[in-house]
Amino acid sequence: MAGRVTVRRPVLRIREGAVDRRADTLAAEEPMEIRVDGRPLAVTMRTPGDDFDLAVGFLASEGVVRRAADVAAARYCAGTNDEGLNTYNVVDVSLAPGLAPPDPSTARNFYTTSSCGLCGKASLDAVGTRAHWSVADDEIALPPDLLAPLPERLRAAQRVFDRTGGLHAAGLFSATGELLRVAEDVGRHNAVDKVIGHAVRADLLPLRGTVLMVSSRASFELVQKAVMAGIPALAAVSAPSSLAVDLAEEHGLTLVGFLRGKSMNVYAGAHRVSVP
Amino acid sequence: MAGRVTVRRPVLRIREGAVDRRADTLAAEEPMEIRVDGRPLAVTMRTPGDDFDLAVGFLASEGVVRRAADVAAARYCAGTNDEGLNTYNVVDVSLAPGLAPPDPSTARNFYTTSSCGLCGKASLDAVGTRAHWSVADDEIALPPDLLAPLPERLRAAQRVFDRTGGLHAAGLFSATGELLRVAEDVGRHNAVDKVIGHAVRADLLPLRGTVLMVSSRASFELVQKAVMAGIPALAAVSAPSSLAVDLAEEHGLTLVGFLRGKSMNVYAGAHRVSVP
Repeated sequence: MAGRVTVRRPVLRIREGAVDRRADTLAAEEPMEIRVDGRPLAVTMRTPGDDFDLAVGFLASEGVVRRAADVAAARYCAGTNDEGLNTYNVVDVSLAPGLAPPDPSTARNFYTTSSCGLCGKASLDAVGTRAHWSVADDEIALPPDLLAPLPERLRAAQRVFDRTGGLHAAGLFSATGELLRVAEDVGRHNAVDKVIGHAVRADLLPLRGTVLMVSSRASFELVQKAVMAGIPALAAVSAPSSLAVDLAEEHGLTLVGFLRGKSMNVYAGAHRVSVP
Repeated sequence: MAGRVTVRRPVLRIREGAVDRRADTLAAEEPMEIRVDGRPLAVTMRTPGDDFDLAVGFLASEGVVRRAADVAAARYCAGTNDEGLNTYNVVDVSLAPGLAPPDPSTARNFYTTSSCGLCGKASLDAVGTRAHWSVADDEIALPPDLLAPLPERLRAAQRVFDRTGGLHAAGLFSATGELLRVAEDVGRHNAVDKVIGHAVRADLLPLRGTVLMVSSRASFELVQKAVMAGIPALAAVSAPSSLAVDLAEEHGLTLVGFLRGKSMNVYAGAHRVSVP
């Protein structure tokens, strides 16, 4: 479905009094339903492309799969739209025999506790319960000179695909700053799930010695996804939230925000950022 | 919970080789569970503040409530955290007698159809089925001179609260460009729900003759929220997605993107944007 990443639409452009009509390129957005062994689990609004990676990455973030062998098969359902064409918007993931299927209620509400006192601490604990490995002992060194070029490398990779200004990007980098994988999506969570799902399917988890770079802010859920994939460092172009910092500290993950040129803020795991 | 909008955390700042440690202000993020008549419906990661507005706005976006009288009560559950303090993270909304409670499966998957052929068209149809009013006949005039100052007015209002660089803003403006209501959140959907929920509780729906301005991109879900609230125009600082444009066209909503100074792109409903 690579052909559906962008679509063309007419637009009225107004620039300092001048007006013209032209075709504009927009980021494609379509719903995608993720099913596990035939049972609907979640619907996400996403940019078509890398759909199996997205589905598997979503399941890895929820703690359902972590190895290539955990996924017996991923396929598009055979459903059709009004014109009898497959929509390619329903992905069914078959789990390996013996693997516990996700509880729909927990997949939906990762942070829910049974008590009424839902709080940030409970959210942190829920991730800890599900994480299959620790990132705290990952000894990747992250000098500022390694981190500084990452946003530009991510943008350069993104520019190939994105002519819309409407796509988030996520990139996985090696300990030497090499771009290992990039994904784009209208949703930043989806972009990260696509990168992680690709790694799961290549049986690369835990992703020790890597850095995940995102073109957006760093929320709790993005740190969660990094932890679940065994990634020891998350770098973001923009600001982190308070709970993202708390979760990064709890798991020993290095969290860098406002990474712009040679400027950056290190919010957690600063011991890996060796400053001369 | 107005005191929890931002929190302070230590940060290692690196600026062109210079390094210092200081306290940084971060956008607060906490989970919030929305219950309806005691039954859990959804959990969202949000910035505390305007929580009842957020809960009611979420329910309005789902088509569950639309008038002040539809909400019998909104209150914090009495649950506590480890220290015995109320977390203020669980909001229970009591519906007026006779009002149908939301079906958890539809609230979760607004776009899901029973067939396997989930597609953009089905998503558009689902919104049409739930909308209580039409915005197509709203005759608000949106000359470029009215739209151009809105981003700066939103930023000015946001600056009062946001010292973090990490909060999205949504503002509701009158037909003369007056800011009627502003809300901020780590999540852009939440910011919009807070603005709309406040209007529901003041019994102002449908919000005819208004413009909703967001500091972010314009996704399908943001257009959906505008339609459900009877708002005839959505303006965004950044790009719209393809499905956002499709939904705006289907409902006769004016969708403006890349609104920056006197430059803007009109993607749908251009008849309201009278160009000299």
